[in-house]
Amino acid sequence: MNVYVPPKDVRAAPDSVTTGPIQGSRKVYAEPKSHPGLKVPFREIRLTDPKEPPVRVYDPSGPYTETDSAIDLAKGLPQVRAEWLAKRGLEAVTPREVRPEDNGNVAADKLVASCPAERQVLRAPAGVPITQYEFAKAGIVTEEMVYVAFRENLAREAALEGAAARHADGDSFGAAIPEFVTPEFVRDEVARGRAIIPANVNHPELEPMAIGRNFLVKVNANIGNSAVTSGAAEEVEKLVWSIRWGADTVMDLSTGRNIHNIRSWIIRNSPVPIGTVPIYQALEKVDGDPLKLDWEVFKDTLIEQAEQGVDYFTIHAGVRLRHVPLTANRVTGIVSRGGSIMARWCLAGHRESFLYERFDEICDICRAYDVSFSLGDGLRPGSIADANDAAQFAELETLGELTKIAWDKGCQVMIEGPGHVPMHKIKENMDKQLRECGEAPFYTLGPLTTDIAPGYDHITSGIGAAMIGWFGTAMLCYVTPKEHLGLPNRDDVKTGVITYRIAAHAADLAKGHPAAKIRDDAVSRARFDFRWEDQFNLALDPDTARSFHDETLPKDAHKVAHFCSMCGPKFCSMQITQELRAEAKAMGDNERKALEAEAGMEAKSKEFLEGGGKLYVDAAE
Amino acid sequence: MNVYVPPKDVRAAPDSVTTGPIQGSRKVYAEPKSHPGLKVPFREIRLTDPKEPPVRVYDPSGPYTETDSAIDLAKGLPQVRAEWLAKRGLEAVTPREVRPEDNGNVAADKLVASCPAERQVLRAPAGVPITQYEFAKAGIVTEEMVYVAFRENLAREAALEGAAARHADGDSFGAAIPEFVTPEFVRDEVARGRAIIPANVNHPELEPMAIGRNFLVKVNANIGNSAVTSGAAEEVEKLVWSIRWGADTVMDLSTGRNIHNIRSWIIRNSPVPIGTVPIYQALEKVDGDPLKLDWEVFKDTLIEQAEQGVDYFTIHAGVRLRHVPLTANRVTGIVSRGGSIMARWCLAGHRESFLYERFDEICDICRAYDVSFSLGDGLRPGSIADANDAAQFAELETLGELTKIAWDKGCQVMIEGPGHVPMHKIKENMDKQLRECGEAPFYTLGPLTTDIAPGYDHITSGIGAAMIGWFGTAMLCYVTPKEHLGLPNRDDVKTGVITYRIAAHAADLAKGHPAAKIRDDAVSRARFDFRWEDQFNLALDPDTARSFHDETLPKDAHKVAHFCSMCGPKFCSMQITQELRAEAKAMGDNERKALEAEAGMEAKSKEFLEGGGKLYVDAAE
Repeated sequence: MNVYVPPKDVRAAPDSVTTGPIQGSRKVYAEPKSHPGLKVPFREIRLTDPKEPPVRVYDPSGPYTETDSAIDLAKGLPQVRAEWLAKRGLEAVTPREVRPEDNGNVAADKLVASCPAERQVLRAPAGVPITQYEFAKAGIVTEEMVYVAFRENLAREAALEGAAARHADGDSFGAAIPEFVTPEFVRDEVARGRAIIPANVNHPELEPMAIGRNFLVKVNANIGNSAVTSGAAEEVEKLVWSIRWGADTVMDLSTGRNIHNIRSWIIRNSPVPIGTVPIYQALEKVDGDPLKLDWEVFKDTLIEQAEQGVDYFTIHAGVRLRHVPLTANRVTGIVSRGGSIMARWCLAGHRESFLYERFDEICDICRAYDVSFSLGDGLRPGSIADANDAAQFAELETLGELTKIAWDKGCQVMIEGPGHVPMHKIKENMDKQLRECGEAPFYTLGPLTTDIAPGYDHITSGIGAAMIGWFGTAMLCYVTPKEHLGLPNRDDVKTGVITYRIAAHAADLAKGHPAAKIRDDAVSRARFDFRWEDQFNLALDPDTARSFHDETLPKDAHKVAHFCSMCGPKFCSMQITQELRAEAKAMGDNERKALEAEAGMEAKSKEFLEGGGKLYVDAAE
Repeated sequence: MNVYVPPKDVRAAPDSVTTGPIQGSRKVYAEPKSHPGLKVPFREIRLTDPKEPPVRVYDPSGPYTETDSAIDLAKGLPQVRAEWLAKRGLEAVTPREVRPEDNGNVAADKLVASCPAERQVLRAPAGVPITQYEFAKAGIVTEEMVYVAFRENLAREAALEGAAARHADGDSFGAAIPEFVTPEFVRDEVARGRAIIPANVNHPELEPMAIGRNFLVKVNANIGNSAVTSGAAEEVEKLVWSIRWGADTVMDLSTGRNIHNIRSWIIRNSPVPIGTVPIYQALEKVDGDPLKLDWEVFKDTLIEQAEQGVDYFTIHAGVRLRHVPLTANRVTGIVSRGGSIMARWCLAGHRESFLYERFDEICDICRAYDVSFSLGDGLRPGSIADANDAAQFAELETLGELTKIAWDKGCQVMIEGPGHVPMHKIKENMDKQLRECGEAPFYTLGPLTTDIAPGYDHITSGIGAAMIGWFGTAMLCYVTPKEHLGLPNRDDVKTGVITYRIAAHAADLAKGHPAAKIRDDAVSRARFDFRWEDQFNLALDPDTARSFHDETLPKDAHKVAHFCSMCGPKFCSMQITQELRAEAKAMGDNERKALEAEAGMEAKSKEFLEGGGKLYVDAAE
């Protein structure tokens, strides 16, 4: 593994990032039988026990984790979608010219160079359907849908053979997760608006993925510089680093200078969908004064970013003038940046939000490039005290209204959700979102289940994220340990992503996702067999698992030892159980059956007594 | 803060531990009006805004966090219960003599000296009621109950005045949390068996606390050396360190040598209840061979530990011979050390567990010292695959049977629970435990909600712990990042405790505990007001919060700045909201009311349409 150390000079163009396989894994590409040539990526973990099949896991990390990957950031990633896009009647357009304000009017000597990789800018001619939603509604299965279906299945056909029942328990609260995902299923979910495939036509490097309640729960990581700190090289490495550990999409929340050019590096080198909050850049263009914002500068920013290839936009169009007074008595007011900007804009002029009023036009732009909507929750609660209040739910109702408009316009939509919510109020959020927004995918930040642990908000929110993921949220926006305190560094990004992969996986398990338990069971068998290397390699973070083990038992011999440092050799319950099994086997069938019968008898007897001790029960019972 | 560095030589007696207040807090003692002289400890966090009252939080850390605390480990802590105990008719007994096997037959040159603090060993004369349960049943309110009631209330009378409704939302699943805790309420809960006050008569240094569904959710931390590593000094420091960060009880799970003498240091210096698993020491006495165990060596160990002052014993009396075959097809067999030892013992001789058969006699011993039972879950699942299986639930039913015997004998009881359980199977555990065990307090390990993240099992289990705490678990046994991999070090212990304090607090909030939200709201107000110091000091871990902030904005000026490094000065939503409020105020009442009315109208109109648009609704609706 080549670990990238960002240069001291943050203005430098990125030239190197972390590459190489995750320890114990290798990148594999597989092709769906129906579509040879469609190379779908997976990560394969080989185990030391020849009786154990390799475990194939979902892998959003792109070519960076290939063995001997040849990465040239200045050229950008391979254009896996280029051929597909070429057949869709898109028109080549001359892109909008880059202006000084796009990079925050930065002085020439501080300007970050743009990524030299050039791509022909595409857009839909009027009337030509080109979004995944439009295709799906028209009954057309796109290559993206085929890719997604194959990707979501992992290798579960083989792993689940004869074991389906075993893996299927769970409670999905009305989700409709299929035993196997077919391209037609993907199309149908997209057509119903229950899933999106964020995939801007100007992002040919994208490895398509789906966000929806009936697919694996996804994780988003945020990166982005701010006015105070951080630059280009660091942001590209944060992208690569966060997808390495499992981020499925990445939002670039930059607010400082050079954001147009930094974004060019990010998108050209990203195999995952990139999301942004266009109002941030629009605000930079008007010197940071919310009152100077208007439709023209916003529209210009949408086109600028859509042409660059941004896959989804957070648009805070649900913050309406009438909602603002509802926040007046909150403990923490409005904590969404976009929400507070728009609230201020509305209230200052006593006028309705231009995002709300121009929503039709925003849809037209998004449709032309297939930029998905992430309808922003500008009034999300910023504290336990403000959870599920009138302001939050009024906005959610407006988002439901906008969802239908966006669908009518041919756009893909997901809905952003809270924030800070105590456990007992989480489910209400999910239920209301499904109801108000016609089952459009929910994309939540946390939620944080308490406010008292700054420094550990990946954990306060990981709890809420696992729960809301179980209840039906399609994508979880990560929170790092630095939340509320500072900008995350490399370690924080990794901790945030791993925590959220835990939450997403715990949710998949609880929903009864047919393939989710395969990896848990593989870890558990490795643990019981004392296959330490397999246990490490199957872990979400093999490096940390291995280094923790080695802290107390560093010798190689201990990696095959039938004990660990917790109990030592004499007290190992797993070792004792293995002996026990041998004895149980030796004890003979009859004796074992007698014992089992006794246990069974006891249960029967108990049932009998609890049933009131009646000798005969009513037929109805 | 005096940070203790353990000496290289682990045989050395402990002579120094971490002392001094937590940053930004001070230790206070308050007296219930009814019982002047009863000094109950709290931690008080003073805030910089004079309008903000200080926040008083529960504090299990003992005298170690006093300013200028005078700690002398060789003398032990002050005996806060000595006077109370003196009036209870206990008899002074000559303690059992310490034998070489009590310390694992360690060679003289490797023997850790015993703690020199001497206490008169006490026990109940036959027929004289002395346990908290016996007192409670007899209608007697003990000093321990008064202490617990006052402690649980914190200072909430003042803080809740006029705000009760605001703090009372939540869903407690049938718990009966009172607005204020009275001594009589505590007595009643103990008498019903719904709460315990673990308090061995030989632990006079104890600051009494309660474990029960209608009290604040508690956290246990495990310490203990093992055959492989760690020694006396380190274990005492781990105790002090874990209660510093919020552990309410501590289990000493030592399995190596010197465990009798190390335990003497731990108990004499512990203000919190100490739990043990006596079978571990009993096994050491028979050279680690489970088959050599018998009632005599076990009984001897119980008396040895009860005389030392252990407050609760984990007893795996629910592992019966008939349950063992039920584990045969498990993925991870039996993962409890105590459970696997007893299963092996039962199966080897095809005989019923002596713990089960001698349970009456075990109760007699426990009653004589008021050692509480923690009925062990020896068959808890060790993997997602084995959750909620027949073995686990058969044992739980047996624990229910034993609970009633223990109550009949006058003993206090809690029940241990899993383990590894996916989210959708957690509630069933809680419901079944309440039903089978007559609402005796549940004390769970995690549960871990997935097996795929070794190195992060504080998080996989923190998710499950928060949920099961919400559902009704009274105490959560922490899990550290080293779980499954190695012995926790100092940082791991802290991370484990803080994670579990988060889970416990999130559970209290969701249950609707009347006082839980006070601290969250105080943090949120501090956050909104940019009172950085207050935000840090109110955090579960002020040191980490402060240091994370300082990583990106180290200058002191930034601690009063109205922004932070996440958004920088221009983009701060909180700052914008504050401006917004000023504007909203300036806009005049009429205008604001008009906007609010508009929002209200819309909601009404929506409700109307959703109601089917009927002008009149049936009276029944």
